[in-house]
Parts: sequence; C-alpha cells; structure tokens
Amino acid sequence: MKTGEFDLIGRISAQVRSSIPDGVTGIGDDCAVIPQKDGLDTLVTTDLLVEDRHFLLDDIGPFDLGWKSAAVNISDIAAMGGRPESAFLSIALPGRIGSEWVERFIAGFMDLAGRYGVALLGGDTSASPDKLFINITVLGSCRHGAALKRSGARPGDLVCVTGTLGDSAAGLKLILEHSPDAVAYLRERHYRPEPRLREGIALAATAGVHSMMDISDGIASDLPHILEASGVGAEIDLRRLPLSQELMDICAVRGWDAAELAVGGGEDYELLLTVAPEAFEAASAAVDGGLTAIGRIVESGEPAIRWTGGKRNDYKGFTHF
Amino acid sequence: MKTGEFDLIGRISAQVRSSIPDGVTGIGDDCAVIPQKDGLDTLVTTDLLVEDRHFLLDDIGPFDLGWKSAAVNISDIAAMGGRPESAFLSIALPGRIGSEWVERFIAGFMDLAGRYGVALLGGDTSASPDKLFINITVLGSCRHGAALKRSGARPGDLVCVTGTLGDSAAGLKLILEHSPDAVAYLRERHYRPEPRLREGIALAATAGVHSMMDISDGIASDLPHILEASGVGAEIDLRRLPLSQELMDICAVRGWDAAELAVGGGEDYELLLTVAPEAFEAASAAVDGGLTAIGRIVESGEPAIRWTGGKRNDYKGFTHF
Repeated sequence: MKTGEFDLIGRISAQVRSSIPDGVTGIGDDCAVIPQKDGLDTLVTTDLLVEDRHFLLDDIGPFDLGWKSAAVNISDIAAMGGRPESAFLSIALPGRIGSEWVERFIAGFMDLAGRYGVALLGGDTSASPDKLFINITVLGSCRHGAALKRSGARPGDLVCVTGTLGDSAAGLKLILEHSPDAVAYLRERHYRPEPRLREGIALAATAGVHSMMDISDGIASDLPHILEASGVGAEIDLRRLPLSQELMDICAVRGWDAAELAVGGGEDYELLLTVAPEAFEAASAAVDGGLTAIGRIVESGEPAIRWTGGKRNDYKGFTHF
Repeated sequence: MKTGEFDLIGRISAQVRSSIPDGVTGIGDDCAVIPQKDGLDTLVTTDLLVEDRHFLLDDIGPFDLGWKSAAVNISDIAAMGGRPESAFLSIALPGRIGSEWVERFIAGFMDLAGRYGVALLGGDTSASPDKLFINITVLGSCRHGAALKRSGARPGDLVCVTGTLGDSAAGLKLILEHSPDAVAYLRERHYRPEPRLREGIALAATAGVHSMMDISDGIASDLPHILEASGVGAEIDLRRLPLSQELMDICAVRGWDAAELAVGGGEDYELLLTVAPEAFEAASAAVDGGLTAIGRIVESGEPAIRWTGGKRNDYKGFTHF
C-alpha cells in the first residue's frame, strides 16, 4: 500500500530530521537540494526498481528497462527545474540473468542518459539470491534557490500539466494482456517515457510558477504531495484532463474509464505544477506543446482533491508498495 | 566469484567510458571524483548490501547493520581523503521485516553517520518479494585535485596499512559458529567498523602519500586494484602484518592461520596506502596509532603480489559475488 510506503518514509524522515543542516532540503521532494559555495545547488535523486514490483522481466526487454530506469531519475531532476549531470547504478543480478542482458540494459540506459549529457560514473554490483534489483542515483544542479519545490503552491494557482495523461497506464494494460491491439504509441509511452527536462528548466525560469513535481504515480497520488507540502487543497475538473486520441480510441473500444487511467494510472513522467493565473500564458508559451490547466489550488485544512465534471469523485493513484 | 563481478564492472565500464567528461574520475576508484566550480571536488560512492550475500539477518541485528552500512560507505570517502556530507538510502523490505526493525536500522545508521556530520537527505523504499536489499550512496568533498586515487603507486613506495588486519574476519567466524568464545573485541570489529576518516584526511594532506584505498575484501583482493591502476607489482612480507593480540590468541586456540584472515578475510575497513620511503615517518606521525609498512611496490608487468616470510604464498581475498 502506498500508505505503507509513506508511513515508512514519514517515520524515517522524523528520525533523521535533526541531522539535516539549515538550508538543505532533504526527504519529501523529488530531489534533495544541497547548496554549494559556487552559486549552484546540487540536486540528488534516487530510485529503487524491484523485479515483480516495478517491472516484470517477461514484459519489458533490457534495453527498454535501462532507458526507463534512466528516464525516471532524470525526470526527478526535471521536476525541480535542474540539469542532470551524473548517474550511479547499483544492480543485484540473479543467476538467470546473463551478461548479454546487462549489456543491453546499459545500452538502453546510456541511450537515454547520453541525450541529456548524463555520465554513468559509478555503482555497485552483486549477485542476487532471487530477484533483480536496480538502484539509480542521479546528481544534477540548478542555480542557487531556483529549484521548484512541492511546497510553493498558493490558493488561486492554476494546477497544470505538460503533455497528455494516462497513455503509459493504457500501454501497460495492453502489455500485461499481451493484447493483439498493437497501439504502438501507448506502448512506447510506457516503455520509453521522455523526461520533461527542457520543460522543467524553462518553467523554473518563469516567474509565477510556484511548485512542481513529476507525475510518477498519477495525479491522484502525486498532487496530494504538493497539497500537503503547501498546506492547501485542490479542485480538478476531469473534463480538462489532456487525453491523447490514441487513449480515447482504446478506451472507447475496450470500455475503459479514460479519467481513471489519466489520474490514477501512473508512470506518465509529465510535469505537474501550479502557476499564478496571470503567469499561465507565459508559462505555457515556455513549453513545447504548452500546458493544460486542469484545476485550481484552494484554501483547505486538508490536502484533499475535489474531483468535478466526471462520472466519479473517488479516484486514487497507482501504488508500488 | 569476484572475477565475475570484476568482469561485469569491466564490461560496463568499457560501455560507458566515452560518456565520462574530461577531468572526472568514474568507475574504478573508491569514489567518483567530480570537479566543481568552487575549488572543491565532489566525491560519490555507492554500496549495495544484499541479504544472504553481504549479511545474514539471523547474525546481525538492525542497529549494527545500520551502523555498518553507514560505515562502509563513509570508509570509501575516507579512502580518498575526503569529508562525507550526505547520505541517500534505498531499502527494499520483505514483508517479514517490520517497522521496528527499520527504526533500529536507521538509529544505527544515524549513530555512526551523526558522528561524522553526515545527514540522511533522501532515498527510496519498496516492498521486496523475498530478500532485504539496501543501497546507500554517500556524497562528500575534498579540495580540488587532493583526492588520493588508486593509480598513484610508484616502484619503491612502501605499502602501508592503518590499524590491525583480520579482526573482522575472525569476529565473523566466531559469529557464524555461534561460538561461546565471546571475544567481544573481534565481534565488535566485525559489527562496528570505524571508518578511518581523520586518518584519510591527514594522509591526503601529507606529501609523499601516492595512492590509497580502503580494505573491504582483504589486501589480497584489494591491493591488486592499486597495482593494476598504477601498472606496478608488490612484495608483501607476511611477518609484518599488524595483528591484534586478540586475533593471535584466538588463532592459537583454534589453529587458524592468522595471515590468511589478515590478508584474505575482508571487512577491516582500514586504509591501504603507498608512501615514498622518505615520507613514511611524517605519514605515520599524521595518524593515531601510526602506520605499519608491510611491503614495497616493485616494477612489474603484472599487478601481482609476491608474498614473502610466511607459510604460504597463494593467499586470495574475500568475495561477495
């Protein structure tokens, strides 16, 4: 249960809080933010991928898994508006996985990482008694104080996203069904998410963008992190969710609820941000394809989302725990 | 087999080498070394600990495992002569491990990390289908260009170590035997290795210290990394190995080969370094307890160790793979 994971992180966070120096952002954002002496902040993110929890080896090839492992970490740097620089990879390999698999995995990892100038500078390897485990740490940087955190959302802000939502979740459903409906676009969106790095940097440089994160578990799970960190609530209009034609088509054929996939499916790796209304136009113009405003931040004692304009009002996010 | 691990790292290293920017040290040292603009180099190390490979849950409690997990990573920073600053922890938890275990693990981690001013700034958590996996990344820094690498050893250098060797290996043997020989000192050396951080910083500031690493797998495994990186060989006099009284006593009682434990046992987390002979006295004086010179770097086409002065000449290191 996601609850379990967040309880655990909350407990660890409470235990270590007193060790965190002033001015340093620790647990609770997409990256840690560590000020340096040269006018830059170092950004650090780390992600753990566990076989049968985060991926099924039968359903994703090594090249795609390598690509995606790099993408999800670089997406965390994008979510702060930073530039990624270096990566560190730890991998625990069960005996059934050979060196050819690893070579393809690294090739996929480097194919994505290389596009963004990220060097693989170290790591660790071990045998694994059973499952494959992958841990990736990515370091990046941004101008001191420029990182966009989760805690800046203000009542009245527009809640915005880049790109379209739900494609990856629909792609995964088709993959898991071993479906003959070969919707290449949706599968590609699942296997090869493109981190919104240029977009993140441009948005961090735009006045009036108040908070940002990436969408890894779906906005039903992710937006509450912004709401909690900022002490606000949100209203989301389900009619405004940006949906691809491919998603709408497959939902029509299969009778799937597109809104459920879009808000609860996860793994879109688009950016979720809040923007002052008067800054929306400039922020949208800063991003290829523009932004979609899907709702509004409201004053609230609880970090809750009110869903409007749809069939249901009880959407939940995707969970790995 | 260690060979397997090193083949794998070698293959990955060859695959990613072209992505590494000039001036950056990547795979192959205790830490990556990344120059910053402020006259400092960032150091990064990462270690993967796998249940039943690196530790047995029946034989080490959560507090000790937390302590040791922090110590082995901070030891990698010490091995370069750097100062550790922040840590990132990923943990994949099987269902049989509860939150109380995690709390004790974090308490042990922070007990050691806190002594050295290291803040835990982030990480990731997941459920694990079977085994416990822990990955730790530690960031540190040193003055630009001051990091002591493995590649600086020169023919004629003395091969030196801090502290005593083999205690941790003997402690582990007693632990695994569930032995009633309660040699608290040896068990403590296994459960609570003390990273040689002050020593590493002092040695990095001493002229004539040419190369350094920490001893994680025993010098029979570890010294060849210095030899390979430096293009030299070594002669080690087994009579000069620094052995604790406790180790010699238990070896006498049990008929164990102290030299085998000292060179091949691993997990000492002492420092292994090479020093110009004329600098030995100054280097030794810089370190609490001094250094022990155990041999000499020689010209050689192979990164081989010639063992002299002992019963055997075929010692091998400890291996996790």
